Amino acid sequence: MIAPKNDRGVVLWLTGLSGAGKSTIATALEPRLRGLGRRVESLDGDVVRTHLSKGLGFSREDRETNVARIAFVAHLLQRNGVTVLVSAISPYRATREAARARIGDFVEIHVAPPLEECIRRDVKGLYAKALAGEIPAFTGVSDPYEPPAAPELAIDTSRVSVDAAVELVVDRLRALGFLELHPTATATP
Amino acid sequence: MIAPKNDRGVVLWLTGLSGAGKSTIATALEPRLRGLGRRVESLDGDVVRTHLSKGLGFSREDRETNVARIAFVAHLLQRNGVTVLVSAISPYRATREAARARIGDFVEIHVAPPLEECIRRDVKGLYAKALAGEIPAFTGVSDPYEPPAAPELAIDTSRVSVDAAVELVVDRLRALGFLELHPTATATP
Repeated sequence: MIAPKNDRGVVLWLTGLSGAGKSTIATALEPRLRGLGRRVESLDGDVVRTHLSKGLGFSREDRETNVARIAFVAHLLQRNGVTVLVSAISPYRATREAARARIGDFVEIHVAPPLEECIRRDVKGLYAKALAGEIPAFTGVSDPYEPPAAPELAIDTSRVSVDAAVELVVDRLRALGFLELHPTATATP
Repeated sequence: MIAPKNDRGVVLWLTGLSGAGKSTIATALEPRLRGLGRRVESLDGDVVRTHLSKGLGFSREDRETNVARIAFVAHLLQRNGVTVLVSAISPYRATREAARARIGDFVEIHVAPPLEECIRRDVKGLYAKALAGEIPAFTGVSDPYEPPAAPELAIDTSRVSVDAAVELVVDRLRALGFLELHPTATATP
């Protein structure tokens, strides 16, 4: 009989403020994890909004719906052996905890430079607008961000380079047993 | 080096009227395909609506958005080696063709009993309501269904049992090369 593949999928859930560096770390993680033999998919909050959540806004309810959809898709991939990199502000603790409960193999990574650092970078120019009152309900400025109580990893990207952040994630995954080799993984020529 | 698994994923897209038997065939296909060593996920149109498309209605635009979301998720799974069973009325030819173009490894299965048979079965009691004018825009009654021009397979479920339908699908998949064994698939004890 031919057994289905049984790589252990996992969801790496990068949460944090806009401009914290979530997508940057995810983008750098992708090839690193592929090099370790993992199948990898990225679900970026902004990208997912265009594909799965067009029409949703930034009210608490709409944010929760968006995050729940990401969690639904991440779970489908994870249980088929994929390492899923989710980059999403996902400001509400309860919504993230619901994702963790649904998925199980879930590694929460708090990408957490100080707010001042995000404002200083302001890659998308959004903080300037938010601070000027031009964007209502902007997370960290005029809308809440509930930091994780016990994330598997927290990275202060004002002190750690992208490359170093990637290695912190890999080390943490290894310590948690998510990078162990399976018999099926070593059988490929 | 450990290569990623390379099972060839494929999307089986079951299209047809409400009550045609799409979900019934998909449910019976799941264990059959798992027995052939495939990873299988089902995306049922009704279920997906609750997870990904709450709030969408049945206008042409909303139907297309719903089908595009199913295609987006099906593609993510397919390119990670999953056999994805989509059961969705998906009434518009252009939307299905867009899904095919996005996904590539796409097998369109028209589940096509005569409309009269769907009305006779009326499993969910929806045709009675639609014919009484109580449901607006009901596919096949008061809303269009555009049949596939060249599906990989068409099954008249008024003439073929569920078990026979499953074998028709398996035969077609084999003929199309989607059930060929890969070296990685045979290496598992």
